[in-house]
Amino acid sequence: MGKMKAMPPVEEVDLTSVKYQPQKIDAPHLTGFSLKLFVWLMESPVLGPLIISALKNQNKMTQLLRYTLIPERPMYRPEFPPQEPEQGVVLVDEERDPIDRLHTATYALPKYDPSIRWSKESPPFLYWKIRDYAHAYRHNITTPSLVAEQLISAIKEWSTTNSSMPMLIHFNPDNVRSQAEASTSRFVEGKPISILDGIFIAIKDDVDCYPFPSRSGTSWFDQVRKVDKDATCVARLRKCGAILIGKANMHELGLGVTGNNPNHGTARNPHALDRYTGGSSSGPASIVSSGLCPAAIGTDGGGSVRIPSSLCGIVGLKTTYGRTDMTGVVCDGGTVEVVSPLAASVEDAMLVYSAIAGSSPSDKISLRPSPLSLPTLSSSDNLNILQSVKLGKYSEWFHDVSNTEISTKCEDALQLLCNTFGSQIEEIVLPELEEMRTAHIVSIGSESLFPLNPYCLEGRRSDFTLDTRTSLALFGSFSASDYVACQRLRRRIMYYFMEAFKKVDIIVTPTTGMTSPKIPPSALKVGESDYDVSGYLMRFVQPGNLLGLPAISVPIGHDKDGLPIGLQLIGRPWAEASLLRAAFALEELCMKFRNRPSGIFFNLLTTS
Amino acid sequence: MGKMKAMPPVEEVDLTSVKYQPQKIDAPHLTGFSLKLFVWLMESPVLGPLIISALKNQNKMTQLLRYTLIPERPMYRPEFPPQEPEQGVVLVDEERDPIDRLHTATYALPKYDPSIRWSKESPPFLYWKIRDYAHAYRHNITTPSLVAEQLISAIKEWSTTNSSMPMLIHFNPDNVRSQAEASTSRFVEGKPISILDGIFIAIKDDVDCYPFPSRSGTSWFDQVRKVDKDATCVARLRKCGAILIGKANMHELGLGVTGNNPNHGTARNPHALDRYTGGSSSGPASIVSSGLCPAAIGTDGGGSVRIPSSLCGIVGLKTTYGRTDMTGVVCDGGTVEVVSPLAASVEDAMLVYSAIAGSSPSDKISLRPSPLSLPTLSSSDNLNILQSVKLGKYSEWFHDVSNTEISTKCEDALQLLCNTFGSQIEEIVLPELEEMRTAHIVSIGSESLFPLNPYCLEGRRSDFTLDTRTSLALFGSFSASDYVACQRLRRRIMYYFMEAFKKVDIIVTPTTGMTSPKIPPSALKVGESDYDVSGYLMRFVQPGNLLGLPAISVPIGHDKDGLPIGLQLIGRPWAEASLLRAAFALEELCMKFRNRPSGIFFNLLTTS
Repeated sequence: MGKMKAMPPVEEVDLTSVKYQPQKIDAPHLTGFSLKLFVWLMESPVLGPLIISALKNQNKMTQLLRYTLIPERPMYRPEFPPQEPEQGVVLVDEERDPIDRLHTATYALPKYDPSIRWSKESPPFLYWKIRDYAHAYRHNITTPSLVAEQLISAIKEWSTTNSSMPMLIHFNPDNVRSQAEASTSRFVEGKPISILDGIFIAIKDDVDCYPFPSRSGTSWFDQVRKVDKDATCVARLRKCGAILIGKANMHELGLGVTGNNPNHGTARNPHALDRYTGGSSSGPASIVSSGLCPAAIGTDGGGSVRIPSSLCGIVGLKTTYGRTDMTGVVCDGGTVEVVSPLAASVEDAMLVYSAIAGSSPSDKISLRPSPLSLPTLSSSDNLNILQSVKLGKYSEWFHDVSNTEISTKCEDALQLLCNTFGSQIEEIVLPELEEMRTAHIVSIGSESLFPLNPYCLEGRRSDFTLDTRTSLALFGSFSASDYVACQRLRRRIMYYFMEAFKKVDIIVTPTTGMTSPKIPPSALKVGESDYDVSGYLMRFVQPGNLLGLPAISVPIGHDKDGLPIGLQLIGRPWAEASLLRAAFALEELCMKFRNRPSGIFFNLLTTS
Repeated sequence: MGKMKAMPPVEEVDLTSVKYQPQKIDAPHLTGFSLKLFVWLMESPVLGPLIISALKNQNKMTQLLRYTLIPERPMYRPEFPPQEPEQGVVLVDEERDPIDRLHTATYALPKYDPSIRWSKESPPFLYWKIRDYAHAYRHNITTPSLVAEQLISAIKEWSTTNSSMPMLIHFNPDNVRSQAEASTSRFVEGKPISILDGIFIAIKDDVDCYPFPSRSGTSWFDQVRKVDKDATCVARLRKCGAILIGKANMHELGLGVTGNNPNHGTARNPHALDRYTGGSSSGPASIVSSGLCPAAIGTDGGGSVRIPSSLCGIVGLKTTYGRTDMTGVVCDGGTVEVVSPLAASVEDAMLVYSAIAGSSPSDKISLRPSPLSLPTLSSSDNLNILQSVKLGKYSEWFHDVSNTEISTKCEDALQLLCNTFGSQIEEIVLPELEEMRTAHIVSIGSESLFPLNPYCLEGRRSDFTLDTRTSLALFGSFSASDYVACQRLRRRIMYYFMEAFKKVDIIVTPTTGMTSPKIPPSALKVGESDYDVSGYLMRFVQPGNLLGLPAISVPIGHDKDGLPIGLQLIGRPWAEASLLRAAFALEELCMKFRNRPSGIFFNLLTTS
């Protein structure tokens, strides 16, 4: 029996003999005519399956999914063992009104000291935070309406110089004005709803935000999917008084991680306008990174919040699977995706998180989330808990990056954390990372394909971008038994990570294996397909998706080209609070290594 | 957009306008040369996919799975809402030793009155029960060793007249003798282990029972899958002192419901030797039905315990998904299959159930079973609880049978129950039964195919029976997104059943839509493929598998040819106790309508 292989039961795998396999992807880099030709070939009824089959063979997917016996039972969605309560946290009853929850969250933050942020002698800082806006509104420094006008003109300016207005897909100045007026009136009456009242937040195009359509980055999906109310998370933000500025750009259907989008234009990295933001939450990342909004809502099924956050130098929180309610999100119904915040700072991520969190009723039953909790950063010695925190590092994986500057700077940041707070770094081993990647891609691909199938079959396949079409052709080649195989792999990988979490509290990696890639000029019009770049960008994010683990990307510095580097912290199931604490500490320590975006940066608070 | 269809959200489906669709299957009946030709065509690389695609189109599978938008989130395994505790039950702590649990179970049964079963004037009865054997052993009427000799000679006789010995695939007289001797010694010492000590139980070939190999009805699977210990459920029985007589015949790999098996011979229905037992637990059903054992262990992924129980006039209990531990069962890892008892009577099913039940550690976490409980039938008025029981009947479905005698007799039995105990029958509507069947077949097919793939690809496909090969060719055509579609359907169907269970306590149907079919002589050597017969046999059993609901088949009479008819009770999740109570009452009431098998019937107790 030639190619057949039987995996040993996961409990019998000897971790001491595991050898790290650097990721190697065999696929052509295509753009322009070559991409068109490739898509034409892949979609052809006879040659297509042969090409796809050859590619899958070359990347050992067929070997893994068809010739391998995997003894574990399938795990179709993340199944988490019961968790110990976290230390040093305040519980937030998720059944409560989001306004009440925000109240608790605000009290959990360190006391706000306006003198630090508003005095002329204050040290320079990168971004105005939500609490800066809140302070400004409450002390008549500015009003939501005044900020709205600046925002509108900034977006118009950006829209004129970049005619496709690539940060937002749907934007209506009057809609923003009327929300801002309502908020301003509340401040005039002395009755703001919450700390988020008057805070400008962008919503990724695949999350419903009434009255805007949800195109999910396509040119036409709003024709077949009507929006008649806000997604649950958006409704929660709106209830808190947030101003929802419109629908942010994204990689079409979330099926790519550069942010390339020939339909609506490709959002640019504020740190270097000739480079990608990363994706798929490209618009949210560029909006937050450029200072237009302190936070945005994204979705993360394969790093789509964390990758662009890392590439754009902002904070991206991926919540535990099931922690946020996906009702009203286009990609609802998957097993790897969550809706989650991108933010200018850790505290902003924490505030938005506390407003939007809350599992759907069915997930409350089937996943039994641990109680929603936040770190009590208001207590001055809460960070001392970091003394007992063990950080797990799989060094060979950690260093499997395109440019060693990335891993070195990430190591330096961690060392700084350890030196300051006494945390410890422990070496861990995580086997079968290649299997993890395959399991992830088959899961997200199959789950994404299902609701698109009818449209593809009815002739609308060609209305998608070429990049999407290569993905759909690949996804269409996965068999039901491949899908089952991947769920068996999911249980193995979960085992390895849960074993690691017996030794350590947080697993650390760079967020991405490369900093922001250049946009090939030819890719702007027709897109591109570059599995090699995708591989570098997705290398470290997939455990968070396949296993549903919470993770956060914290900006910790720049490479020699001035491009941001993000450090990823992966936590135990439901342990967002511990992640936020560590991220908060890291952010403080690394602030000095960070620069404002050099390309576009808007300051909407003090220029009023 | 021609074929595309969007299903309304399940909550919006108007049950009053649902129209029952009689099941209609378009597939050829094949045996002998035509079956060989068909398999050859189906496996051919070019024609095969075309034929399969045409068959799926004809049966509207493609329409349903590729052209339909299904708004519900996928449900990959049964997810049960929390359940109310059952009335009139005794809790059995599943963490306790199976011996203790059997003790509780025995006390939950009506007091055993030997005078009824052993006096010469006692009314005739069909089968000796476990407690009859137990009584006989404890009162020196016979010994396990004496019964073993009779069993061995009966099996030898059967094996001589039917040279393929089709009831058992693996049988070793010396092994049986040594187990019986050990049991006999325990009785001599006055120290029997439990009520199951010395009780002869057959184990379906896909359940590990050391030292026998598990071939799962194939001719070769033991070459690639070694058995080095008992399956968990078998270990529990062995611990209680049961005598495990060997590995019972089955439809190859459980992938068919007639019990046809060209590898080991086709087990015969003791009620008519020219007819099928039904499957896939064909051997267990023929062994119990012929009086050789009071109980057997089977597996039920698509009616495989209930169908043969119904066709052979015995009791078949399908437990709730996750109630029994699948460790050591060949088909472990699926989302529809359980290991469960077939028995001569309801009380025997209850005893064996109480010994083998107990979820696997991971299911305890992920499924959170309601506590294991049994009806306290020992209390004389426990059956009075039936007064408050509402039986749900979907009349059009109920009557969609090949021969109205089946549904009429089932109705009569229910009416008798209502008249005697005051239970009520309520009309219910269960929409989308065709969708349910598709979701079931795609789920079980894909999950079965995965572990067979490597062998098929390495050239062993042709070592399977032709019937299996047609199934595998069909299963291989399911895409990953088909699988996802079916899991979305699963959530819809679960909703409909849970809505029904708000109105009623038990859903009643005939177990099968036809009584035992004839074995075409040409099918003995090469097998047959008859989707029409499969459709009739599986019509009513699939909700139990797709939704993981407990169900029990109770023999309630015979058709005009003397072939047994089974009535199926489907219960709320985890509510085996309520089912056992109702089944117990039905069994008592219908005893007078039942006949002993006319073909083969062994009496191992009084002929000693």
